[in-house]
Amino acid sequence: MEIRFGKDGLVPVVVQDYQSKDVLMLAYANKDAIKKTLETKKAHYYSRSRKKLWMKGEESGNVQEIVDVRIDCDGDALLYIVRQHGNACHTGNYTCFFTKLEGSE
Amino acid sequence: MEIRFGKDGLVPVVVQDYQSKDVLMLAYANKDAIKKTLETKKAHYYSRSRKKLWMKGEESGNVQEIVDVRIDCDGDALLYIVRQHGNACHTGNYTCFFTKLEGSE
Repeated sequence: MEIRFGKDGLVPVVVQDYQSKDVLMLAYANKDAIKKTLETKKAHYYSRSRKKLWMKGEESGNVQEIVDVRIDCDGDALLYIVRQHGNACHTGNYTCFFTKLEGSE
Repeated sequence: MEIRFGKDGLVPVVVQDYQSKDVLMLAYANKDAIKKTLETKKAHYYSRSRKKLWMKGEESGNVQEIVDVRIDCDGDALLYIVRQHGNACHTGNYTCFFTKLEGSE
Protein backbone atom coordinates (compact mmCIF):
# COMPACT_ATOMS: atom_id res chain seq x y z
CA MET A 1 0.00 0.00 0.00
CA GLU A 2 1.45 3.35 -1.14
CA ILE A 3 1.06 6.35 1.13
CA ARG A 4 -1.19 8.98 -0.44
CA PHE A 5 0.07 12.34 0.79
CA GLY A 6 -2.16 15.41 0.68
CA LYS A 7 -1.43 18.39 -1.56
CA ASP A 8 0.64 19.80 1.29
CA GLY A 9 2.85 16.67 1.24
CA LEU A 10 1.50 15.53 4.61
CA VAL A 11 -0.44 12.56 5.91
CA PRO A 12 -2.32 12.54 9.24
CA VAL A 13 -0.98 10.17 11.89
CA VAL A 14 -3.12 8.77 14.70
CA VAL A 15 -0.98 7.92 17.71
CA GLN A 16 -2.05 5.15 20.07
CA ASP A 17 -0.55 3.73 23.25
CA TYR A 18 0.38 0.07 22.63
CA GLN A 19 -0.67 -1.01 26.11
CA SER A 20 -3.67 1.05 27.27
CA LYS A 21 -4.76 1.54 23.64
CA ASP A 22 -5.63 5.16 24.47
CA VAL A 23 -5.53 7.52 21.50
CA LEU A 24 -2.79 9.95 22.48
CA MET A 25 -2.73 12.57 19.71
CA LEU A 26 -3.19 13.34 16.05
CA ALA A 27 -0.20 14.74 14.19
CA TYR A 28 1.11 15.00 10.63
CA ALA A 29 4.07 13.46 8.85
CA ASN A 30 5.83 14.07 5.56
CA LYS A 31 8.00 11.56 3.70
CA ASP A 32 11.11 12.49 5.72
CA ALA A 33 9.33 12.16 9.05
CA ILE A 34 8.16 8.66 8.16
CA LYS A 35 11.64 7.66 6.97
CA LYS A 36 13.19 8.91 10.24
CA THR A 37 10.47 7.16 12.25
CA LEU A 38 11.16 3.82 10.58
CA GLU A 39 14.96 4.21 10.81
CA THR A 40 15.14 5.30 14.44
CA LYS A 41 12.02 3.58 15.80
CA LYS A 42 11.14 6.89 17.44
CA ALA A 43 8.08 8.88 16.32
CA HIS A 44 8.88 11.83 14.06
CA TYR A 45 6.36 14.33 12.68
CA TYR A 46 6.19 17.46 10.58
CA SER A 47 5.08 20.55 12.48
CA ARG A 48 2.65 22.59 10.41
CA SER A 49 3.09 25.66 12.63
CA ARG A 50 6.89 25.55 12.88
CA LYS A 51 7.23 24.16 9.33
CA LYS A 52 9.84 21.62 10.28
CA LEU A 53 10.52 18.00 11.06
CA TRP A 54 10.53 17.16 14.74
CA MET A 55 11.05 14.16 16.93
CA LYS A 56 8.42 13.80 19.62
CA GLY A 57 10.19 14.33 22.93
CA GLU A 58 13.28 16.05 21.47
CA GLU A 59 12.82 18.85 24.02
CA SER A 60 10.45 17.37 26.61
CA GLY A 61 12.02 13.92 26.74
CA ASN A 62 8.56 12.45 26.16
CA VAL A 63 9.78 10.17 23.39
CA GLN A 64 7.47 7.71 21.61
CA GLU A 65 9.09 4.36 20.83
CA ILE A 66 7.51 2.76 17.79
CA VAL A 67 5.87 -0.61 18.34
CA ASP A 68 3.99 -0.78 15.02
CA VAL A 69 3.09 1.45 12.07
CA ARG A 70 -0.10 0.77 10.14
CA ILE A 71 -1.68 2.35 7.07
CA ASP A 72 -5.38 2.56 6.36
CA CYS A 73 -7.31 0.93 3.53
CA ASP A 74 -7.02 3.88 1.16
CA GLY A 75 -3.50 4.89 2.12
CA ASP A 76 -4.23 8.38 3.36
CA ALA A 77 -3.82 7.94 7.12
CA LEU A 78 -1.22 6.26 9.34
CA LEU A 79 -1.41 4.78 12.82
CA TYR A 80 1.67 4.83 15.03
CA ILE A 81 1.35 2.39 17.92
CA VAL A 82 3.85 3.54 20.53
CA ARG A 83 5.38 3.09 23.93
CA GLN A 84 4.94 6.59 25.38
CA HIS A 85 7.58 7.96 27.75
CA GLY A 86 6.04 10.53 30.09
CA ASN A 87 2.98 12.31 28.75
CA ALA A 88 1.95 12.76 25.13
CA CYS A 89 0.34 16.17 25.65
CA HIS A 90 2.25 19.41 26.15
CA THR A 91 -0.37 20.37 28.79
CA GLY A 92 0.94 17.58 31.02
CA ASN A 93 -1.99 15.28 30.33
CA TYR A 94 -1.28 11.75 29.21
CA THR A 95 -3.41 12.14 26.08
CA CYS A 96 -4.28 15.25 24.07
CA PHE A 97 -7.93 14.11 24.00
CA PHE A 98 -8.69 14.89 27.65
CA THR A 99 -11.60 17.25 26.93
CA LYS A 100 -15.20 16.25 26.27
CA LEU A 101 -16.67 18.14 23.29
CA GLU A 102 -19.27 20.66 24.45
CA GLY A 103 -22.79 19.52 23.62
CA SER A 104 -21.80 15.85 23.55
CA GLU A 105 -23.25 14.96 26.97
CA MET B 1 -12.81 24.39 23.71
CA GLU B 2 -13.80 25.73 20.28
CA ILE B 3 -13.33 23.50 17.28
CA ARG B 4 -10.67 24.89 14.92
CA PHE B 5 -11.71 23.86 11.43
CA GLY B 6 -9.18 23.80 8.58
CA LYS B 7 -9.37 26.18 5.61
CA ASP B 8 -11.57 23.59 3.93
CA GLY B 9 -14.06 23.79 6.82
CA LEU B 10 -13.18 20.27 7.99
CA VAL B 11 -11.70 18.72 11.09
CA PRO B 12 -10.16 15.22 11.19
CA VAL B 13 -12.00 12.67 13.34
CA VAL B 14 -10.28 9.64 14.85
CA VAL B 15 -12.79 6.84 15.40
CA GLN B 16 -12.24 4.33 18.20
CA ASP B 17 -14.18 1.28 19.36
CA TYR B 18 -15.40 1.91 22.92
CA GLN B 19 -14.83 -1.68 24.00
CA SER B 20 -11.76 -3.09 22.19
CA LYS B 21 -10.28 0.43 21.94
CA ASP B 22 -9.13 -0.42 18.40
CA VAL B 23 -8.70 2.60 16.14
CA LEU B 24 -11.27 1.95 13.40
CA MET B 25 -10.79 4.75 10.89
CA LEU B 26 -9.89 8.36 10.28
CA ALA B 27 -12.53 10.55 8.65
CA TYR B 28 -13.43 14.23 8.36
CA ALA B 29 -16.35 16.27 9.66
CA ASN B 30 -17.70 19.73 8.99
CA LYS B 31 -19.92 21.75 11.32
CA ASP B 32 -23.10 20.08 10.03
CA ALA B 33 -21.72 16.57 10.42
CA ILE B 34 -20.81 17.28 14.05
CA LYS B 35 -24.25 18.79 14.74
CA LYS B 36 -25.97 15.73 13.25
CA THR B 37 -23.67 13.41 15.21
CA LEU B 38 -24.53 15.09 18.50
CA GLU B 39 -28.26 15.25 17.73
CA THR B 40 -28.69 11.66 16.52
CA LYS B 41 -25.90 9.97 18.52
CA LYS B 42 -24.86 8.31 15.25
CA ALA B 43 -21.54 9.16 13.59
CA HIS B 44 -21.79 11.55 10.64
CA TYR B 45 -18.92 12.72 8.46
CA TYR B 46 -18.21 14.85 5.42
CA SER B 47 -17.00 12.91 2.40
CA ARG B 48 -14.18 14.77 0.67
CA SER B 49 -14.53 12.66 -2.49
CA ARG B 50 -18.32 12.79 -2.76
CA LYS B 51 -18.43 16.33 -1.31
CA LYS B 52 -21.39 15.61 0.93
CA LEU B 53 -22.50 14.84 4.45
CA TRP B 54 -22.96 11.14 5.16
CA MET B 55 -23.99 8.96 8.05
CA LYS B 56 -21.69 6.00 8.58
CA GLY B 57 -23.74 2.90 7.75
CA GLU B 58 -26.45 4.72 5.79
CA GLU B 59 -25.96 2.18 2.97
CA SER B 60 -24.02 -0.66 4.60
CA GLY B 61 -25.94 -0.71 7.88
CA ASN B 62 -22.60 -0.51 9.70
CA VAL B 63 -23.78 2.32 11.92
CA GLN B 64 -21.57 3.80 14.66
CA GLU B 65 -23.43 4.68 17.86
CA ILE B 66 -21.72 7.51 19.70
CA VAL B 67 -20.49 6.72 23.21
CA ASP B 68 -18.32 9.82 23.65
CA VAL B 69 -16.93 12.73 21.62
CA ARG B 70 -13.65 14.31 22.65
CA ILE B 71 -11.60 17.23 21.34
CA ASP B 72 -7.85 17.55 21.51
CA CYS B 73 -5.81 20.14 23.40
CA ASP B 74 -5.57 22.59 20.51
CA GLY B 75 -9.06 22.03 19.14
CA ASP B 76 -8.10 20.80 15.69
CA ALA B 77 -8.93 17.09 15.98
CA LEU B 78 -11.89 15.11 17.33
CA LEU B 79 -12.19 11.60 18.72
CA TYR B 80 -15.46 9.71 18.29
CA ILE B 81 -15.67 6.75 20.67
CA VAL B 82 -18.29 4.43 19.19
CA ARG B 83 -20.18 1.19 19.39
CA GLN B 84 -19.53 -0.21 15.90
CA HIS B 85 -22.25 -2.27 14.22
CA GLY B 86 -20.71 -4.72 11.74
CA ASN B 87 -17.35 -3.66 10.29
CA ALA B 88 -15.94 -0.15 10.06
CA CYS B 89 -14.04 -0.76 6.82
CA HIS B 90 -15.65 -0.98 3.39
CA THR B 91 -13.23 -3.86 2.62
CA GLY B 92 -15.03 -6.01 5.17
CA ASN B 93 -12.29 -5.66 7.78
CA TYR B 94 -13.23 -4.54 11.26
CA THR B 95 -10.78 -1.64 11.18
CA CYS B 96 -9.40 0.33 8.22
CA PHE B 97 -5.89 0.00 9.73
CA PHE B 98 -5.44 -3.69 8.91
CA THR B 99 -2.23 -3.20 6.87
CA LYS B 100 1.29 -2.93 8.25
CA LEU B 101 3.23 -0.08 6.61
CA GLU B 102 5.94 -1.45 4.34
CA GLY B 103 9.40 -1.01 5.82
CA SER B 104 8.05 -0.89 9.38
CA GLU B 105 9.09 -4.46 10.32
